[in-house]
Amino acid sequence: MSRGRFITIEGGEGAGKSTLIRSLEQVLEARGLDVVTTREPGGTVLAEEIRNLVLHPPGETQWSALAEALLMNAARADHVEKKIAPALAAGKWVICDRFADSTRVYQGIGGVNDTMLQAMQAEVTKDAAPDITFILDGPVDELLQRRTARGTSDIFERRPIGFHTAVRERFLEIAKAAPDRCKVVDASRDPSRVLEDVLSVIDERVSAS
Amino acid sequence: MSRGRFITIEGGEGAGKSTLIRSLEQVLEARGLDVVTTREPGGTVLAEEIRNLVLHPPGETQWSALAEALLMNAARADHVEKKIAPALAAGKWVICDRFADSTRVYQGIGGVNDTMLQAMQAEVTKDAAPDITFILDGPVDELLQRRTARGTSDIFERRPIGFHTAVRERFLEIAKAAPDRCKVVDASRDPSRVLEDVLSVIDERVSAS
Repeated sequence: MSRGRFITIEGGEGAGKSTLIRSLEQVLEARGLDVVTTREPGGTVLAEEIRNLVLHPPGETQWSALAEALLMNAARADHVEKKIAPALAAGKWVICDRFADSTRVYQGIGGVNDTMLQAMQAEVTKDAAPDITFILDGPVDELLQRRTARGTSDIFERRPIGFHTAVRERFLEIAKAAPDRCKVVDASRDPSRVLEDVLSVIDERVSAS
Repeated sequence: MSRGRFITIEGGEGAGKSTLIRSLEQVLEARGLDVVTTREPGGTVLAEEIRNLVLHPPGETQWSALAEALLMNAARADHVEKKIAPALAAGKWVICDRFADSTRVYQGIGGVNDTMLQAMQAEVTKDAAPDITFILDGPVDELLQRRTARGTSDIFERRPIGFHTAVRERFLEIAKAAPDRCKVVDASRDPSRVLEDVLSVIDERVSAS
């Protein structure tokens, strides 16, 4: 059996990652593919425990960006080992809502050394290198407004606009440095157009590989 | 105020780390020093949460050595940031029962890439480099017997003897590679002799530095 395909979806808040993943899953399943959708941080019992520890630190205390980066990668190690790598080996297509790039972006903005992040992530993701990463990109104010309109506003939107701009810039830097793996998609358009673009890239670069 | 001193105590099971730490703490306090004793994994609220997650993974599942190494370092990042570095900055002497070398030894034996471990640990411990590390060393069978005699036998002793031998060898390799930081102490002798050795090294290398 040939190895499946690993597709990661990245981008800031309000970029439409969940919507894209749902429709992409439907289209790929309609083509007869066996599709697994998952998310980070999380995806396995132990990784979800870490997710909970990161998002809700007990007591009156907070994690540093460095501790967060290590926890995210511990969760990722478990996720890769128990879910993603076995699915790929079984010929399945895995679509993941956020993956290693998100840690580089968010904890990188938090001040964590990028060389260390990359060394750690190379080790953690070596059995699950994405075939393609779609970076959903668009003007920060537009995407945030859309998120508010959807009524899914949360703690992230209370961050200053400069933070969201930094997130956007870091994702674009990652895409620029890894053009074979990353494809930047204009996410400010209608979801059906976004899906169309994503599918054409999959047909061109991923299906045949 | 001058920076305090950071002393780490390493070694396999039954080496007498806890006994040494208790007596060392008493002697240093009798000299008028402000001493903090702590342990790894753990030492802070969040690090103890991680300790619990590592030692008691929920469900029917287990951590890989890689995930464990990342979790240990996440706990260490919190421990350094909130407890060790502030104590050193306040002029205190910190004695820690196991530290970064234990992760290199145990998760290294588990198969984790040592270059990645070192890169990660350099980042995590940069505000808390040990002034000295005592590696309590002795013949594996003798130390394990002592541990059994103390009635503190646990899960570790049920590991094959080859595991404990590998632990001993890795600690000795680390000591050899970092002779300025590490001092190997013959732990098969009477605890008072071990303490005496440790104190003379502290007087020679650490107090005056």
